[in-house]
Amino acid sequence: MIPRYSRPEMVAIWSPETKFKIWYEIEAHACEAMADMGTIPRENADAVWKAKDVEFDVARIDEIEAVTKHDVIAFLTHLAEHVGADEARFVHQGMTSSDVLDTCFNVQLVRAADILIAGVEGLMGALKRRAIEHKDTLRVGRSHGIHAEPTTMGLTFARFYAEMDRNLARMHTARAEIATGAISGAVGTFANVDPQVEDHVCAALGLKPEPISTQVIPRDRHAAFFAALGVVSSSIENIAIEVRHMQRTEVLEGAEFFSMGQKGSSAMPHKKNPVLTENLTGLARLVRMTVIPALENVALWHERDISHSSVERNIGPDATITLDFALARMTSVIDKMIIFPQNMLDNMNKFPGLVMSQRVLLALTQAGVSREDAYSMVQRNALKVWEHRTDFREELLADEDVCKALSVDEINEKFDMGYHTKHVDTIFARVFGDI
Amino acid sequence: MIPRYSRPEMVAIWSPETKFKIWYEIEAHACEAMADMGTIPRENADAVWKAKDVEFDVARIDEIEAVTKHDVIAFLTHLAEHVGADEARFVHQGMTSSDVLDTCFNVQLVRAADILIAGVEGLMGALKRRAIEHKDTLRVGRSHGIHAEPTTMGLTFARFYAEMDRNLARMHTARAEIATGAISGAVGTFANVDPQVEDHVCAALGLKPEPISTQVIPRDRHAAFFAALGVVSSSIENIAIEVRHMQRTEVLEGAEFFSMGQKGSSAMPHKKNPVLTENLTGLARLVRMTVIPALENVALWHERDISHSSVERNIGPDATITLDFALARMTSVIDKMIIFPQNMLDNMNKFPGLVMSQRVLLALTQAGVSREDAYSMVQRNALKVWEHRTDFREELLADEDVCKALSVDEINEKFDMGYHTKHVDTIFARVFGDI
Amino acid sequence: MIPRYSRPEMVAIWSPETKFKIWYEIEAHACEAMADMGTIPRENADAVWKAKDVEFDVARIDEIEAVTKHDVIAFLTHLAEHVGADEARFVHQGMTSSDVLDTCFNVQLVRAADILIAGVEGLMGALKRRAIEHKDTLRVGRSHGIHAEPTTMGLTFARFYAEMDRNLARMHTARAEIATGAISGAVGTFANVDPQVEDHVCAALGLKPEPISTQVIPRDRHAAFFAALGVVSSSIENIAIEVRHMQRTEVLEGAEFFSMGQKGSSAMPHKKNPVLTENLTGLARLVRMTVIPALENVALWHERDISHSSVERNIGPDATITLDFALARMTSVIDKMIIFPQNMLDNMNKFPGLVMSQRVLLALTQAGVSREDAYSMVQRNALKVWEHRTDFREELLADEDVCKALSVDEINEKFDMGYHTKHVDTIFARVFGDI
Amino acid sequence: MIPRYSRPEMVAIWSPETKFKIWYEIEAHACEAMADMGTIPRENADAVWKAKDVEFDVARIDEIEAVTKHDVIAFLTHLAEHVGADEARFVHQGMTSSDVLDTCFNVQLVRAADILIAGVEGLMGALKRRAIEHKDTLRVGRSHGIHAEPTTMGLTFARFYAEMDRNLARMHTARAEIATGAISGAVGTFANVDPQVEDHVCAALGLKPEPISTQVIPRDRHAAFFAALGVVSSSIENIAIEVRHMQRTEVLEGAEFFSMGQKGSSAMPHKKNPVLTENLTGLARLVRMTVIPALENVALWHERDISHSSVERNIGPDATITLDFALARMTSVIDKMIIFPQNMLDNMNKFPGLVMSQRVLLALTQAGVSREDAYSMVQRNALKVWEHRTDFREELLADEDVCKALSVDEINEKFDMGYHTKHVDTIFARVFGDI
Repeated sequence: MIPRYSRPEMVAIWSPETKFKIWYEIEAHACEAMADMGTIPRENADAVWKAKDVEFDVARIDEIEAVTKHDVIAFLTHLAEHVGADEARFVHQGMTSSDVLDTCFNVQLVRAADILIAGVEGLMGALKRRAIEHKDTLRVGRSHGIHAEPTTMGLTFARFYAEMDRNLARMHTARAEIATGAISGAVGTFANVDPQVEDHVCAALGLKPEPISTQVIPRDRHAAFFAALGVVSSSIENIAIEVRHMQRTEVLEGAEFFSMGQKGSSAMPHKKNPVLTENLTGLARLVRMTVIPALENVALWHERDISHSSVERNIGPDATITLDFALARMTSVIDKMIIFPQNMLDNMNKFPGLVMSQRVLLALTQAGVSREDAYSMVQRNALKVWEHRTDFREELLADEDVCKALSVDEINEKFDMGYHTKHVDTIFARVFGDI
Repeated sequence: MIPRYSRPEMVAIWSPETKFKIWYEIEAHACEAMADMGTIPRENADAVWKAKDVEFDVARIDEIEAVTKHDVIAFLTHLAEHVGADEARFVHQGMTSSDVLDTCFNVQLVRAADILIAGVEGLMGALKRRAIEHKDTLRVGRSHGIHAEPTTMGLTFARFYAEMDRNLARMHTARAEIATGAISGAVGTFANVDPQVEDHVCAALGLKPEPISTQVIPRDRHAAFFAALGVVSSSIENIAIEVRHMQRTEVLEGAEFFSMGQKGSSAMPHKKNPVLTENLTGLARLVRMTVIPALENVALWHERDISHSSVERNIGPDATITLDFALARMTSVIDKMIIFPQNMLDNMNKFPGLVMSQRVLLALTQAGVSREDAYSMVQRNALKVWEHRTDFREELLADEDVCKALSVDEINEKFDMGYHTKHVDTIFARVFGDI
Repeated sequence: MIPRYSRPEMVAIWSPETKFKIWYEIEAHACEAMADMGTIPRENADAVWKAKDVEFDVARIDEIEAVTKHDVIAFLTHLAEHVGADEARFVHQGMTSSDVLDTCFNVQLVRAADILIAGVEGLMGALKRRAIEHKDTLRVGRSHGIHAEPTTMGLTFARFYAEMDRNLARMHTARAEIATGAISGAVGTFANVDPQVEDHVCAALGLKPEPISTQVIPRDRHAAFFAALGVVSSSIENIAIEVRHMQRTEVLEGAEFFSMGQKGSSAMPHKKNPVLTENLTGLARLVRMTVIPALENVALWHERDISHSSVERNIGPDATITLDFALARMTSVIDKMIIFPQNMLDNMNKFPGLVMSQRVLLALTQAGVSREDAYSMVQRNALKVWEHRTDFREELLADEDVCKALSVDEINEKFDMGYHTKHVDTIFARVFGDI
Repeated sequence: MIPRYSRPEMVAIWSPETKFKIWYEIEAHACEAMADMGTIPRENADAVWKAKDVEFDVARIDEIEAVTKHDVIAFLTHLAEHVGADEARFVHQGMTSSDVLDTCFNVQLVRAADILIAGVEGLMGALKRRAIEHKDTLRVGRSHGIHAEPTTMGLTFARFYAEMDRNLARMHTARAEIATGAISGAVGTFANVDPQVEDHVCAALGLKPEPISTQVIPRDRHAAFFAALGVVSSSIENIAIEVRHMQRTEVLEGAEFFSMGQKGSSAMPHKKNPVLTENLTGLARLVRMTVIPALENVALWHERDISHSSVERNIGPDATITLDFALARMTSVIDKMIIFPQNMLDNMNKFPGLVMSQRVLLALTQAGVSREDAYSMVQRNALKVWEHRTDFREELLADEDVCKALSVDEINEKFDMGYHTKHVDTIFARVFGDI
């Protein structure tokens, strides 16, 4: 994660200030629960809330950690500097560091998930708007990069919308996966801290208690979370590749918006390069690369080892910040993207009429021609168009065998574009419901 | 995937015979739907069902494919040999190869998911049984591989159960992700095939129609599917690592079952090696490695390219067969695993009483000792035990400062094991509900 | 690995027959060395060679393994059936299974590397031939998929050649990485087997003795090997992407060879799809995915655990067979690839003259125009060409500011293609040396 | 990459200041070469060197980039502010941004490689010292985590040394892979910049000219570089796992150094956790995860797309900084690691004498007992030791069949430790040469 590919709201989730704030809340709520149960004096619990509006001094905590080599103890020491050593003496009672660290990490991931969910929704909004705008904008569909049959630009946007809709569901599932907390002590037995404390803290922070934890919250949850991010990022790559193809000089069916101050290249002023979507292709790789270490983090030794920690300190911020930035950038690309409908028609007619060959093939078989013969009739005329850029319809009309099977009107009718778009409304209704 | 790590039921899903059978069903149901709509003659649709009980001749289809270099055409040609060329002439009408291939692949993945779901359930059954059996079997909990506080073997099994229960939910989600079919033609516009055909075929095969497809079903679905398999396999590694640690010579708290004919090593007859769980560790890597290519498969060019296909021809069978085998092997390991409760107690007492140090620390602070002083009192006595293997309780009783803070009875009471197991029932209820 | 993407020579390396043959050779050479040292009787060593031409019975060995659950013991038992139980009693003396398994695996990897090296060389041959053939075939160079400046098709082939030349070096390094053997006993101390045995066996098999092994040969070697395969496969993807782009309908500067029986698609007979290079894109992912588990295999417990084994049983054959197939397929694609020089010129002139804008910009600054002004002069004329497809040269000749800075002859001279190809020979000499 | 896991020297390589300094040097050397050739006036080239000692103002460059949206143009604009707009007007002439960016990136990677090479050498130094120190420190070798035969701690250190020695060679190869530069213009044809400029700049910066580039230096080089880092990091994990196992409570054969201020855990003061090596296990995952995106970066579109850039902006610093930190941390761990020789002996004797079973087996067969019978004799006595912790030697002496085959002296002799260490010197000589 680097500033170039970051947005402040997501970055803020991962700041030391935010982290210490959450640690504080966990400890304060835990004290409250213990006071409720009579485990510790009420006044000590109340005293902790005195620090409610404190901005914790990160440099000071780092200084203490340099000595203690333990981040939670450093924080608790600093907290005692605010609350008073005596008043603070029940803070963290019966708890283990991971109760704080893991619950905090999940709070951060939940908040990150909320931003990502909003990001996916934002992108869906842009895609939907452009889908409706270009519902009937004709364009050739391509398989293998080769012209196939007509489709519309709206369908392209609509399928990205549908894909992002699935990603929305995945993100909600992913959020639920890591929305748990644990205050269960050194090995998860609640020996020194009652399960009610966990209940209370989790409720206060919007989490569910982890049904069974060890010293840590089980890492299969986090693995599933990062895997979901990997899928979303791969969908972003999917959209990015489409835009990049559209903007190729030879295709030019669409382009990223080009602001006036921007210089496409230091050497070639006319170049309008799809640099945003190329960048998004790379960002997708960055998010995706975090999936494997997240999966490797699942297998911990016994009640925990700390191998997962250095991984998470990095991929936690990196994957969420990068994906957040990518979603925002992609939303902007889609929002402002320039579409060239005339170029779409020109491209479709590069080999005039050839995209209708499948339909002609079908018509011939329906007219009683054997599949093999029909295939051969279509193929020989198609090859002429391919080689000489003649018009496929005219070639068919000049082919005796074809004309034996189909009338002139029947042949002409096969070149009606409406044939290909007749189910666009049906598909839109499937994707968007009533618009 | 190699026979050594395969089970026949899962392998059968991926046989050419199964594949052609599914292709046949797709084509036959599609013909039926077209006949229902009046698109093709009823008798042609009926004729296709004549092949209902045919075992398709894989060698013959391969032979045709060697000429046509197209697998679906090869199959259709062979089907026509059974049904009759004329009767078969409407088969596949308006459809594209991927309508058959992608719908078939998803049928196979759904069937594979069903077996995997049963596999996860089977493992959960074994884990639950062993959890209940060893609910109260005392054992030291370890963080960083170092003794922490007492726990029970039942809690270890229970947390693996809970993890597998989450995996069960993930597998159900994964199954739903890929339980769609598409019969939407060359670029997904239904130009040559009505959406009703898709509805009919999907309903017959237990799938939902893909709301919007191109030539293919979107690959984010498959990416999510393989990612789920990656998480499950990582959980298997998690359990495997636990068993491997338990079986270490120095630990010996548990062991894989050792059948009598088996030889642990060609050279050291006494060795009982945890080879099954080591093997499972490796199998987890094999399943996990399929996640990245599945994610890379999401970004296809325009309405499709075929780069995903060679990947899926491999990882489809490989990941599901390997995970199925791994689940079955792990179930057997858990089922038959030997537990050594006495060794657990012996290990816990390697440094007598030291696992209670956290509790003593807490008692001291509760008795009014400052956190820093309490820490220091516990630490100095703990170090003696660590270095000389004396008894921690006795060291405490001989420490004047400690005795000033706590009475003899209070000190002794801290070494009661019941203190650590008092919430086991609570946790079991969370995990298993009413047993 | 599936038959569809396999070639017999590489598959044979990984057959059980080959494996048992190598095991046999290791054992026989080891006996010979022990007889040379006087450790075992000469006649027992000689007796082992009686089995020199035996084809070992894989089914029989499997049958024994089903009982012993140990593959090496099963083999040794079967070997004794050939050699005689008494004569065979010194076979494997002082050795451990891994001495045989690891040394065999490396022999297989070395043989696989030799085939892969030949495969890279074959591909280089095809690339060199096509590079020379199209050394001067003009083509527009593209950055970001956007026209930049002229280049030649020969340079494209030449850079793939240079990339494969680097891969050749990497494959030689990779081969050396795994060309070691170990006969060092249960924990690598040679307690029961003299280092001379290792020397003898390794010399006989073309390996170097592993300087220090444990029970196994260290797995960083194999990790480096598979990483090299991952790089080679990514280079194959690099070439594949170029071909796929060239064959796009809108670009059509090249195409995979299209044999006559082949049907491009069941529905669109005219389509010539770049299916081989799309397939190669997928195969690259399959090879690449083996890198991570190979890296995960490095960290073994103490003197060995067997987690690496199931991984290697799969990725050993899979990665080498797939890469071998990919190299052969890519060689064939390059060899037969159709190049369309006229389309290259047509594409370059899509926006007439615009690819020369960088050169004009340079000329203007050299003529004393400030960089900012020159940029602006070029940009305004370039935009006209972009929007109206007029001729860039003519726009410049009509621009007063430009004409103030440059004479008509100077402007015209900037559109000379020779300017861009003047260093092609230099580059070819760098890449190919004297041709 | 986060400060917690960073060292300043490596971080400095990746600072904007360093980057702009290198950009400056590339441009200045290029101007010099152009002046040498007479392409630009000498005084303009000389003028550029006026900025030789300038610390470029990163904030100012960022400010310009915010307008131009192009980093190299922003830098050049800022450079002109120092050199003078007129004097600077030939800077970058005929070059393309990537000439600067890619050459700079490789300079940074080369410098990073130099630090990493020194890091590997430093670790090797520590390993060698500890290997010699513990050459004869007896310890049980373990396969599958199970006692096998005696070995020495020195051999353990020696094999890590040998592994790091291979990594040293890999790092030198990796350094050479990326020690190239390119000043070849927009598509690599040298149309606007002579190859002599490239020669001059590369020579000045310690690079070799890239034989054939496009707009960019080919990315297979970088893929190979990051793959090498992935292997080195996996070796670090390999060492880390060994230390972690050694420090387990039940094993306790070694431990990370424990400084006095450090608190092992907030709750359990006696715990000395192997947190550094657990951390290194995680750091290894972080370095390793960069391999896949580096491999994905190889396939660029035509003469370049910019998808690789966002990946490299992250993994360039992240992988090198993390690996540098990991090497330094591991060196420190090895340097200060505490070894417990007595515990090693105690562990070896957990099942007294059992580690000699292989040797006894061998002796029995050499004495003429059939392999099957010998196996059975050893196994039955070994099982007694396993179950009742009796002494293996005494069990053998009490076994009639054994005593028929071997004399008392012969049996006793089998328990001599020197038997297992007799080749340690040989192995040390292989690994370290003459010490």
